[in-house]
Amino acid sequence: MSAEIICVGTELLLGDILNGNAQYLAQQLASLGIPHYYQTVVGDNPERIKQVIEIAISRAQILIFTGGLGPTPDDLTCETIADFFGVPLVERADIIEDITQKFAARGRVMTPSNRKQALIPRGAEVLPNRTGTAPGIIWEPREGITIFTFPGVPSEMHRMWEETAVPYLKNQGWGKEIIYSRSLRFWGIGESALAEKVAPYLNLLNPTVAPYAGKGEVRLRISALSPSKSVASDLIAPVEKQLKEIAGLDYYGADDDTLASVVGQLLRESGETLSVAESCTGGGLGQMLTETSGSSDYFWGGVISYDNSVKVRLLGVNPEDLEKFGAVSAIVAEQMASGVRSRLGTSWGLSITGVAGPTGGTEAKPVGLVYIGLAAPNGEILSFENRFGVARGRSLIRHVSACTALDILRRKFYS
Amino acid sequence: MSAEIICVGTELLLGDILNGNAQYLAQQLASLGIPHYYQTVVGDNPERIKQVIEIAISRAQILIFTGGLGPTPDDLTCETIADFFGVPLVERADIIEDITQKFAARGRVMTPSNRKQALIPRGAEVLPNRTGTAPGIIWEPREGITIFTFPGVPSEMHRMWEETAVPYLKNQGWGKEIIYSRSLRFWGIGESALAEKVAPYLNLLNPTVAPYAGKGEVRLRISALSPSKSVASDLIAPVEKQLKEIAGLDYYGADDDTLASVVGQLLRESGETLSVAESCTGGGLGQMLTETSGSSDYFWGGVISYDNSVKVRLLGVNPEDLEKFGAVSAIVAEQMASGVRSRLGTSWGLSITGVAGPTGGTEAKPVGLVYIGLAAPNGEILSFENRFGVARGRSLIRHVSACTALDILRRKFYS
Repeated sequence: MSAEIICVGTELLLGDILNGNAQYLAQQLASLGIPHYYQTVVGDNPERIKQVIEIAISRAQILIFTGGLGPTPDDLTCETIADFFGVPLVERADIIEDITQKFAARGRVMTPSNRKQALIPRGAEVLPNRTGTAPGIIWEPREGITIFTFPGVPSEMHRMWEETAVPYLKNQGWGKEIIYSRSLRFWGIGESALAEKVAPYLNLLNPTVAPYAGKGEVRLRISALSPSKSVASDLIAPVEKQLKEIAGLDYYGADDDTLASVVGQLLRESGETLSVAESCTGGGLGQMLTETSGSSDYFWGGVISYDNSVKVRLLGVNPEDLEKFGAVSAIVAEQMASGVRSRLGTSWGLSITGVAGPTGGTEAKPVGLVYIGLAAPNGEILSFENRFGVARGRSLIRHVSACTALDILRRKFYS
Repeated sequence: MSAEIICVGTELLLGDILNGNAQYLAQQLASLGIPHYYQTVVGDNPERIKQVIEIAISRAQILIFTGGLGPTPDDLTCETIADFFGVPLVERADIIEDITQKFAARGRVMTPSNRKQALIPRGAEVLPNRTGTAPGIIWEPREGITIFTFPGVPSEMHRMWEETAVPYLKNQGWGKEIIYSRSLRFWGIGESALAEKVAPYLNLLNPTVAPYAGKGEVRLRISALSPSKSVASDLIAPVEKQLKEIAGLDYYGADDDTLASVVGQLLRESGETLSVAESCTGGGLGQMLTETSGSSDYFWGGVISYDNSVKVRLLGVNPEDLEKFGAVSAIVAEQMASGVRSRLGTSWGLSITGVAGPTGGTEAKPVGLVYIGLAAPNGEILSFENRFGVARGRSLIRHVSACTALDILRRKFYS
């Protein structure tokens, strides 16, 4: 028994919109424990929609359609489904009444084209749409096949799903087994290196463990299928503990944690404060730190020293060192960190200076060369050289620079 | 002749990630004039991937795969395609060499599991991956069927598509009838208000005009179908001109322009410089400005004055005014802008102070209240009160605050 998601809309084929509906429905199916193995996108074309139905009913029992329920002539989903199963459409007076009232509430008169939305296959149940005019259906056109249709507007679809489809599916016995996941987050290790370290876990069946990578970070998703979230948590907990032990300090957090929120928590616990001095990231490190509400408890601010004059004036970087070693150097990173710490009066000072590119690189100082400076509460001043490589591009070099700076500070709490 | 997009990845079926790759490829196919009628998502499962290939080759001639090229055991796309067509995999020494070098450049050693990424079907061409370790392939496993594979990491996929797939497809004769689009960008007007102003244009057939909205900005996409980009441009140009005239100063740029890049261009043209003082945005305004390579020509830096002590120490804000009017006030915004301008010695100073939420709001100063300060080259100091509303949430309030600050400076160049 499995479900299949079928998204109808030429705008998806033109790339005009992101298919957020497929992601939403995928998450919802997972949370109900309903397996689904395929998603299909097809345009507003009756012959192709029918072909998709033919394939879907050969491999799934629950077909979930989104899109193509509107009042315009290119909205064909409902009539095409009815036609496929050879069942006539009937006009539902209750839908006409509902649409008329909705127009009246906005001081408008129902247009003739909206009448089309009141046509549903004979025998289908109406899935009421509280916010829009397009109702959906729940229909068993033949033994063992259940069809849901939803409008493509996400807010309408979400509400209809939650209010009508979820109770229906639970009533059918779904939701007894749910898929619950935890996502462990790692920094400072590559996907393949981490996968090799945890190789035996990648073959587990329940929970499963799968690696993902992106923007310099690696994640391991642990997913359990079980009757409840608490049973799933019990299945996940020992695996999570073992994975964390194997990864050591490369593990930094789970689920919604970010490097910035984790560093913030460490600062909060130790009663310490932080300031930053940013050159090539231009404010991105400060922005990451302040994404967390309440970060003002430990983050005091900093200096964006994009121009060298700002490094000298606001951070006290030595102009002779700037001249001799260049703005992208270990000594300038150290002076930036130390300068922002002393001028702002914080426990820690963290700095970034580098070549984000695509221009500005030299043989000695290529694009991707980034120095991170750290001034510690005990007066220690450190710097770290990173070579992120030109290939990553400006935006990713800046992102990875800010994350690496946070990671360096994070690890200091364990050293 | 048509293409089909096949996205492989269990993470898509679990709803862990949005399928941005399908949207990107859909746009790219449209711009080359290559029809595509179906998109399929399937998990990392060889039998199901084979079933999808079977269906796809019955209705399309170009199959474009994304995902499942990584080094881990669940990455099965390439070997499954080879297996489907009964062709053995061969290890490519050039790929091994490339991966080894990439690891070496980052000071790491290639792991044994990465060897798997050097296996491609006999007879396939390698699609080099300049940024990551997973190469793709272009392969004609049988007459009339062309297969492309790309990694699932969007940045890698985009670059490979542009550098290798586009030239290949153009060489095959595609791109003769193309869909070419221009996206006009507006700030300071809502979607429905703009749509009403330009209503007659929304019914055009070639070019078409369609409105989109998101993150505080509205776009109008003008798309023309024609034999060449130059013919398309000729169709688009008069419509673009009229739309800009109707929108006036609410239009700020097109395509890849951002408010920050447009402001940067205005500063560059006038030979002026800018510094920023940020409270609730925490560095986000500086980050936006420095997303543009070369921004150091006009952006000198700034102060992240998250804590009030920083506003006083580094910006010279009057402590009594801070006490009397609060950090979120017009007078503090003005002093921040003026302070950063004079301390950094730039032509302009731009400041932001507000309540980003979700906590920290009061009846007098609710979440979403944001003051923007502007200190001009002629000594004029202005402030602007904005009420962005609590409903938008912390992240969007911060984003819209930074954009609005840039928009205020932009409009100053025309007043």
